[in-house]
Amino acid sequence: MIDVRSILDNVRRNTPLVHNITNYVTVNDCANILLACGGSPIMSDDVADVEDITSICGGLNINIGTLNKNTISAMMLAGKRSNELGHPVLLDPVGAGASRLRTETAERLLKEVRFAVIRGNISEIKALAQGSTTTKGVDADAADQVNAENLDSVTAFAKAFSLKTGAVIAITGATDVITDGTRVCLISNGHPMMSRITGTGCMLSAMATAFVTANQDRPFEAVCTAVIAMGLAGEIAHGRLSELDGNSSYRNYIIDAIYNLTAEQLENGAKYELL
Amino acid sequence: MIDVRSILDNVRRNTPLVHNITNYVTVNDCANILLACGGSPIMSDDVADVEDITSICGGLNINIGTLNKNTISAMMLAGKRSNELGHPVLLDPVGAGASRLRTETAERLLKEVRFAVIRGNISEIKALAQGSTTTKGVDADAADQVNAENLDSVTAFAKAFSLKTGAVIAITGATDVITDGTRVCLISNGHPMMSRITGTGCMLSAMATAFVTANQDRPFEAVCTAVIAMGLAGEIAHGRLSELDGNSSYRNYIIDAIYNLTAEQLENGAKYELL
Amino acid sequence: MIDVRSILDNVRRNTPLVHNITNYVTVNDCANILLACGGSPIMSDDVADVEDITSICGGLNINIGTLNKNTISAMMLAGKRSNELGHPVLLDPVGAGASRLRTETAERLLKEVRFAVIRGNISEIKALAQGSTTTKGVDADAADQVNAENLDSVTAFAKAFSLKTGAVIAITGATDVITDGTRVCLISNGHPMMSRITGTGCMLSAMATAFVTANQDRPFEAVCTAVIAMGLAGEIAHGRLSELDGNSSYRNYIIDAIYNLTAEQLENGAKYELL
Repeated sequence: MIDVRSILDNVRRNTPLVHNITNYVTVNDCANILLACGGSPIMSDDVADVEDITSICGGLNINIGTLNKNTISAMMLAGKRSNELGHPVLLDPVGAGASRLRTETAERLLKEVRFAVIRGNISEIKALAQGSTTTKGVDADAADQVNAENLDSVTAFAKAFSLKTGAVIAITGATDVITDGTRVCLISNGHPMMSRITGTGCMLSAMATAFVTANQDRPFEAVCTAVIAMGLAGEIAHGRLSELDGNSSYRNYIIDAIYNLTAEQLENGAKYELL
Repeated sequence: MIDVRSILDNVRRNTPLVHNITNYVTVNDCANILLACGGSPIMSDDVADVEDITSICGGLNINIGTLNKNTISAMMLAGKRSNELGHPVLLDPVGAGASRLRTETAERLLKEVRFAVIRGNISEIKALAQGSTTTKGVDADAADQVNAENLDSVTAFAKAFSLKTGAVIAITGATDVITDGTRVCLISNGHPMMSRITGTGCMLSAMATAFVTANQDRPFEAVCTAVIAMGLAGEIAHGRLSELDGNSSYRNYIIDAIYNLTAEQLENGAKYELL
Repeated sequence: MIDVRSILDNVRRNTPLVHNITNYVTVNDCANILLACGGSPIMSDDVADVEDITSICGGLNINIGTLNKNTISAMMLAGKRSNELGHPVLLDPVGAGASRLRTETAERLLKEVRFAVIRGNISEIKALAQGSTTTKGVDADAADQVNAENLDSVTAFAKAFSLKTGAVIAITGATDVITDGTRVCLISNGHPMMSRITGTGCMLSAMATAFVTANQDRPFEAVCTAVIAMGLAGEIAHGRLSELDGNSSYRNYIIDAIYNLTAEQLENGAKYELL
């Protein structure tokens, strides 16, 4: 059993300050979901700014969704400084496998920075762990979904990747696979419509950073709880959709659902299995 | 008659992957409307990333709303690579005529890249086609609206510009003028309140790229259908506004309306005339 | 008494065109609130573009929320050009005190550009005026809230800072303190939940620039009215929240409330005191 209640309580009580070096596509949603869950966001991506900013924060969220030379250098600097300070650092390797720059940047980050968490879809995590490449852009290859048939091989490779990197690995999709190399958590919260919004993955990464920052003695449980919370918010928000609502309102409702999420909802709504 | 039904069906069936090099103001809305219409977005604007990314996509949307040296170079590289691959490329010359950098960048893009579609307001298209300049920023000059009196001259210059560039020209405003140099489509869908939201033009450009990408044998019809769909979404969304709703909710409702748009709605709601 | 009615009327009648060099986190909200209040936004942050763009605008909003070498140079250029043209310029020193780059950039801006308005939370304004630093990131230190006990010292230092810079100083928080060095306005509109949305400060700065641009003979009254309007929108929007709504819907409702704000609402809802 994961004590999701105490994990959430710690976030709400500690207001973890999260430094985000993230893409400009979903950055506003990342900031608002951090505020919704009880954290506090700062965005800063310039080489001359990131070390100071990360020093006053509790955790660091690195998302490679839109990269350039300056922000890549900033990611390295901020990651190393966070490591020195003992802050948890999360990597969201958006589009790893889809371009050389993204794959190589993610690989270089893995070499130079020690990550507490790596969260991506299966195509991205495979690209990092196995060097494979996708041709479907920043969304997971359909051929790559986690299902009953490949579950064993996916958990095996996730565990191996976790042991190699020392990070909690979170492969998110219809079924989410979270592992710290020993334990594995399969989570089935969520709704298919979440893939019709830009940034559900980015928002989850931002939120997971806050959860780990506020629960540094339990990173595995913190990541699992963040993934459950995001999926549950997707379910709650979906239940709220009127006939005229589409993906834009859905996005707002998901952030709203995180804002209003109670420990009771989280405990009662969590759908997971620990292997 | 434009077979709007089959155009929309093709978008929904093919999930066109669209590479966007676009401004950071409305980028999130562009991503969400691409998902809403049935496409899939990728954003990438660094010189070291864009060729790889555009290669795995089906179409390219170039929007010059916020430029810098690096993104301008990225636009040239991505445009040329897309041309080599036979991908349709759309130009949205935001603010052409409002600054030298914007006008010159748009002109340089026209020289170095072959565009399938150019979409802008009349001030922007005039700046490109005739070298005229505006003093009203990124919104169309009031003096420049398409109306009964200037319709003939506007369609004539749009046709000439289409023949010169080889692109479908879409001049959007209260009345939209679309031409492939031979045919002209006048569209009167839409609502004046759409001009009180940032990004309706940018969103339309992103969506039009998806429509053309999924209907490469019919770029003129695809652009007309995208313009009709956007205008119709503006009407549907407006019908949904409560007394307390303003432009922010309106933005969400427009994206929602695209998400829920059916072929029937599109056929029945389309208001256009082919000249 | 502040003639809030005529201030708002001038904004609605003149459609002030505001050039924004602002962070990419909240830029979309800034654009939409400018449109909501009756203004018109342009974003441009490249050294090669800003002088042309600011020349066709009426006012300039400089927000240092996400900085880099290029945008810092652009701020200096645009600020100086605006000064030459007699356009009002507003500074929002986001995160001043939280990093060297932010503090030094804000200080350099104060040296090289003449500001009509400086708006920030108390930690940021203190960092600028007194060289003090915070460790709480971009949000105001709890220890730094304006309250009955420190009100006298806060107004004294705000007045001194106003006299030193020649700018209207707006320190916003639970109680807002606005001063032009002589007059002081204390405003108590607003709702605590506004701090759970990213960008309420940024949006207010954008809107205040529009208000000052449309009321250049009354900058103090214009800033006060913008602050009152933002706070009142926060109250109106809060009254609209359903049980399921959270901070994301709240953000939309605030912009909506500005869109629908009438002169009557503003006059009747204003809660301020002139010292």
